[in-house]
Amino acid sequence: MVSSKSTNLTTVYRSRRRALLRAAARQVKIDAMLVTNPADVGYLTGFSGDDSFALLIGDKPFLLTDGRYDEQAAKECPGVEMYVRTGKMSLAVADVLRGKGVRRVGVQREHVTLALHKALSDALGKRKLIELSNLAAGSRETKDDIEVRAIRKALRIAEKAFLELIAGGAKRFLGRTERQIAAQLDHRMRDLGAEAPFFETIVAVGPNGSRPHHRPGSRRVKRGDPILLDWGARLGGYGSDLTRVVFTGTIPPEFTELYTIVLSAQKAGIRSIQPGKTCKSVDRAARSVIEAAGYGEKFVHSLGHGLGRDVHEAPTLTKTNPKRLRAGMIVTVEPGIYIPGVGGIRVEDDVLVTSRGAKRLSRLPRDIEAMRLR
Amino acid sequence: MVSSKSTNLTTVYRSRRRALLRAAARQVKIDAMLVTNPADVGYLTGFSGDDSFALLIGDKPFLLTDGRYDEQAAKECPGVEMYVRTGKMSLAVADVLRGKGVRRVGVQREHVTLALHKALSDALGKRKLIELSNLAAGSRETKDDIEVRAIRKALRIAEKAFLELIAGGAKRFLGRTERQIAAQLDHRMRDLGAEAPFFETIVAVGPNGSRPHHRPGSRRVKRGDPILLDWGARLGGYGSDLTRVVFTGTIPPEFTELYTIVLSAQKAGIRSIQPGKTCKSVDRAARSVIEAAGYGEKFVHSLGHGLGRDVHEAPTLTKTNPKRLRAGMIVTVEPGIYIPGVGGIRVEDDVLVTSRGAKRLSRLPRDIEAMRLR
Repeated sequence: MVSSKSTNLTTVYRSRRRALLRAAARQVKIDAMLVTNPADVGYLTGFSGDDSFALLIGDKPFLLTDGRYDEQAAKECPGVEMYVRTGKMSLAVADVLRGKGVRRVGVQREHVTLALHKALSDALGKRKLIELSNLAAGSRETKDDIEVRAIRKALRIAEKAFLELIAGGAKRFLGRTERQIAAQLDHRMRDLGAEAPFFETIVAVGPNGSRPHHRPGSRRVKRGDPILLDWGARLGGYGSDLTRVVFTGTIPPEFTELYTIVLSAQKAGIRSIQPGKTCKSVDRAARSVIEAAGYGEKFVHSLGHGLGRDVHEAPTLTKTNPKRLRAGMIVTVEPGIYIPGVGGIRVEDDVLVTSRGAKRLSRLPRDIEAMRLR
Repeated sequence: MVSSKSTNLTTVYRSRRRALLRAAARQVKIDAMLVTNPADVGYLTGFSGDDSFALLIGDKPFLLTDGRYDEQAAKECPGVEMYVRTGKMSLAVADVLRGKGVRRVGVQREHVTLALHKALSDALGKRKLIELSNLAAGSRETKDDIEVRAIRKALRIAEKAFLELIAGGAKRFLGRTERQIAAQLDHRMRDLGAEAPFFETIVAVGPNGSRPHHRPGSRRVKRGDPILLDWGARLGGYGSDLTRVVFTGTIPPEFTELYTIVLSAQKAGIRSIQPGKTCKSVDRAARSVIEAAGYGEKFVHSLGHGLGRDVHEAPTLTKTNPKRLRAGMIVTVEPGIYIPGVGGIRVEDDVLVTSRGAKRLSRLPRDIEAMRLR
């Protein structure tokens, strides 16, 4: 079984690398490509550690890593040749390229520092470094089955951790700080098998909810406070991203109104998703619900973003993005309304674009009644 | 009280910026400096968020941030002028520089990508970008009182979390996975006020301890297993870094021997610390104890590293580093012995170099008896 699974993965990674090389070839002629963005390294080889580069020579892949990761890399990277370096990365690159007739090496301009570029130039002698832009972004936009499965798995853990947290009722929250609640949720996710939170968990109590990117602090929950949670689990290189607002007591009528509007906007956004539709039209579908309710200026961010190895990937669902959706893309849909001094409401789910429209990958309830803690 | 504290901090940050500018002036003539390394941005302004640059024009400091961080920045950065950008960072830099007669702007070659460099070149027109190397590293090597206090605070949290974890005795560990134990320790640190773990907590059970950078996995603790923990708390931009090995039952004699050697080596390393001594001589003092015991080849890494805003800073205590210690430096001292298939022992504390020698900042016990869980 293991061997058939590896073969399968070998094929997956090989096909990803070939697509990448084709994309690069459309940009410029190169013989080799150095991949330095960790998310792209993982995407092209399966490797999940740090401080390692992938090097594609023609379509032969190498992973340049060090002694901390050699066992892990051998396990994770079927069909990839390992180079365990002991010296500088630039010298390792030169070493692997030696004698292979390579003249032009592509590098990622968004993921190579001036210092590394200089070190590579020095180490590679007459070979030319060719700057390439947003290398794997195009291939990574649509997810294959293995990636969809990984994101689903990360979602299941995040959902379970949240449900366990709120199953304790309001008393699990009252008197606790934002930071403690975030720590609790993160701990639950890791206990359930997540490698880490996918990003810094947001817990915003009461009026703090009006800041979309609030960092958890020392504010404590009082009865009646709404609590906004934005959290995700990371597992096997992929992550999930969800937002819910829960209520510790009677829901104040103004929040009921805001919640109803935001949820309608989210549903409208999700309904509008179809292959061929532009990203901005999806943003519009949701935003117009909020505008019609008179809160347009309080929806201060974009509707959503692509999700995968990075928390924010292409495509983004912004007001202006003309890109068209394709089946296999996974995006967040997360409208919000933020009232300074009062609080904020955001409802976020992760959605797969399929040939028949949107499929919500997240399974958490989103009705306001389910968000009321007993 | 707040205002006198702010004045004090303003003075601290101003003096850090002046030292940095003097250091840069020794490299090359510039009128302004763009600081893009987040740790340096924090060091020079007090800011603890992400995605923000510091720009020093002469000795006038600016922080270029966005709407997520404006309130936080205003609180954290006394005496620093805010620029809240809505567009690209490169355009924000150009905007702040406009009309100030700046011709030569220093940039950090280790912390500017090719893409950012190009965007800045385009945005800054005739102004010249001058590449500077390891900008703040020199100033950041020695810590001022505020920094020492911050690291002590991070240590107290990490120590308390560990002591609470082991106070539960062996039953708190038996049957649990490395990942669960790491999650538990991280949760305790955050509950005690840490912003986050300072790095990915290492928990290595039994033979896994032989890999110095083991990542916590699904191995479960069985009675008799030694457990190596390497963990730190981050708070206010600074962190701590400690390692202990605890034992779940009778300590096997071979581990008693290894532990005794490693602890002697650590003490010898710490005793040898004096201003003026070279880093390599401190490594030697500890390493010779392990060599004399016949395990020289099993001590596969350096003795320690500087600690502060980054987990690994200058100076490093390696076999070959000729740098001389100065009062105010803070380093880890962490010898280890690693036996593949058997396990590993490492004991790590954080030490301040003072005019009278080393002062151990960590207060955890390190005798083997204290590491035996009941």
